[in-house]
Amino acid sequence: MGPHPAVAAIRLAVRRVLHDVLTEHRTTGRAPGTPPGGHPLVLVACSGGADSMALASALAFEARKLDVRAGGVTVDHGLQQGSGQRAREVADRMTALGLDPVETIAVTVGPESTAAAHGAAYTGTAARRVGPEAAARDARYAALDAAAERHGATGILLGHTRDDQAETVLLGLARGSGIRSLSGMAAVSGVAGRYRRPFLELDRQTVRKACIAQELAIWDDPHNTDPAYTRSRLRHEGLPALEKALGKGVVEALARTAQLSRDDADALDAWAAHAEADVRDEAGRLECAKLSGLPPAVRRRVLRRAVIAEGAPAGSLFARHIEEVDRLITGWRGQGAINLPGRVEALRQGGRLVIRQG
Amino acid sequence: MGPHPAVAAIRLAVRRVLHDVLTEHRTTGRAPGTPPGGHPLVLVACSGGADSMALASALAFEARKLDVRAGGVTVDHGLQQGSGQRAREVADRMTALGLDPVETIAVTVGPESTAAAHGAAYTGTAARRVGPEAAARDARYAALDAAAERHGATGILLGHTRDDQAETVLLGLARGSGIRSLSGMAAVSGVAGRYRRPFLELDRQTVRKACIAQELAIWDDPHNTDPAYTRSRLRHEGLPALEKALGKGVVEALARTAQLSRDDADALDAWAAHAEADVRDEAGRLECAKLSGLPPAVRRRVLRRAVIAEGAPAGSLFARHIEEVDRLITGWRGQGAINLPGRVEALRQGGRLVIRQG
Repeated sequence: MGPHPAVAAIRLAVRRVLHDVLTEHRTTGRAPGTPPGGHPLVLVACSGGADSMALASALAFEARKLDVRAGGVTVDHGLQQGSGQRAREVADRMTALGLDPVETIAVTVGPESTAAAHGAAYTGTAARRVGPEAAARDARYAALDAAAERHGATGILLGHTRDDQAETVLLGLARGSGIRSLSGMAAVSGVAGRYRRPFLELDRQTVRKACIAQELAIWDDPHNTDPAYTRSRLRHEGLPALEKALGKGVVEALARTAQLSRDDADALDAWAAHAEADVRDEAGRLECAKLSGLPPAVRRRVLRRAVIAEGAPAGSLFARHIEEVDRLITGWRGQGAINLPGRVEALRQGGRLVIRQG
Repeated sequence: MGPHPAVAAIRLAVRRVLHDVLTEHRTTGRAPGTPPGGHPLVLVACSGGADSMALASALAFEARKLDVRAGGVTVDHGLQQGSGQRAREVADRMTALGLDPVETIAVTVGPESTAAAHGAAYTGTAARRVGPEAAARDARYAALDAAAERHGATGILLGHTRDDQAETVLLGLARGSGIRSLSGMAAVSGVAGRYRRPFLELDRQTVRKACIAQELAIWDDPHNTDPAYTRSRLRHEGLPALEKALGKGVVEALARTAQLSRDDADALDAWAAHAEADVRDEAGRLECAKLSGLPPAVRRRVLRRAVIAEGAPAGSLFARHIEEVDRLITGWRGQGAINLPGRVEALRQGGRLVIRQG
């Protein structure tokens, strides 16, 4: 008798990713840190929750059958009482699955998230409430990157499911900043494609069933049900209401939207990179007449690239900024210089668009 | 003392559109049906609800100050008891606003929507539930097109607000078929840009306030609050839950997503149209090697165009169909012919992709 269908599904998903990792390892040569002739090391980032415990179990199972070493890392954000003890328990569970090396890493998260986690009054706007989640994420990825370097790991597996992807698309939609923010999480990302998300096309329910079928002890992060967190509100209220209104296929539709948007955004970015050379004069200045001949979607990307190249931080540059710069081309009526984030300014001078430090 | 700010806002929105209509009228010459030297006629499509009554009032007010004749049309879908009487009342209200000509048009909607409207048990899937709404919409636009031809109208104004746009984006998102379906309603659409949506950047609340400030009698369509309708569920449950989770800016973000997605989809369609010529051999056959060199987003659009050109109905062609055809290029392992809607088949033959009637 074979394994439970849910267990088979998570193992297949991990097996496919390990095959990719092995193929790339053989093609591009061993990762720094891998001993000569040694097998590549793949780590799982594990919080002890259902998704990443399922991932850890599948990695341990599949790695045994392939020329892959499998280890695990758990990050202690230090945001709850007893988090250190819990991290040690998660590490023990990974060791019991047969993972080696297994490491616990303590990180320090910024004061904003600490305040939220300790239950202090928290009355920011929607944008500000994202703060603690983003700070914890940044600290976590920095710790995982460092762990990968330290152990010479070729890959780090992350347990994000299709449901996480759907939530990420809705979070991007709320920014209203275009299709790049609708493209969710990539199946492969990070330095040299270090991060891999084997469960991105599996639904959360399947992954949870795999935990139950394997009798894995799991730990549910209270953040996941804390309505102070945007993602938690989305998961427990926003998405269910949307499913009730639109039907059960919403999560799948959002995940498909992510993939299609990512490909579209990549193609348009490539077009913009190519177009940028064509719209500059010999002195490298942007020519308004040539810019106005580009499709609006491409022109706005060229402008965005040019503004970022002059030092505007990408994260502070919104669609409305670029629209205002665009009006120097498409709605010219003698406007003055436009101030942009990062002390960058944009102005029109003699048929040229000048973007510079103000 | 000037008008109430909400009234000023709806009038400004209509004034801008009338200026565009007049500019185009002067540039392209009078519309068929306009008497020589006569002013262009603009009609408002009015259900008697708040949005379209506000639009009718603003059209009547602004047309007086410009070289524009203003009329109105109300469509009786015949879906409720007494709908004929109500349509006559709406027509009387438009006449009272000073619109001329004013016309009431009775249309017949398919049996599906009739069943829903008469309260018959209705237990379809989400997709099927869209039926009555789509049927009523098709009948309405056919009637409006005919009215425009009959009266020689240059434009027909529609009362869709930014909130309607946000709902439309979410409905498109639920299809998961890519950014074209996220692009919502266009500000200008239809034959020769006949349909105009002056309120697409105004929120519903402003438009409602303008009705109250002008003491306009309005009629609330019971469909708008009937949970049998997808859009109604979205409006009264889905969107409010999403706003609660993500913050108040969701409607605006969705509307901005529509505009950005529309521009992106237009640019990629243009690229695909251009690329299609480059990937065909002298005999007009699609070359797999050349197709594989295109960005995935462009290649899929080229494939979609080719499949539609062979007779597949666009509305039945889903992302998964095109993905399967794409695998003949990117994941070739000797697959057989792929059957597509409209009896079209796609197969790979000697390095060429053949798409034909099967």
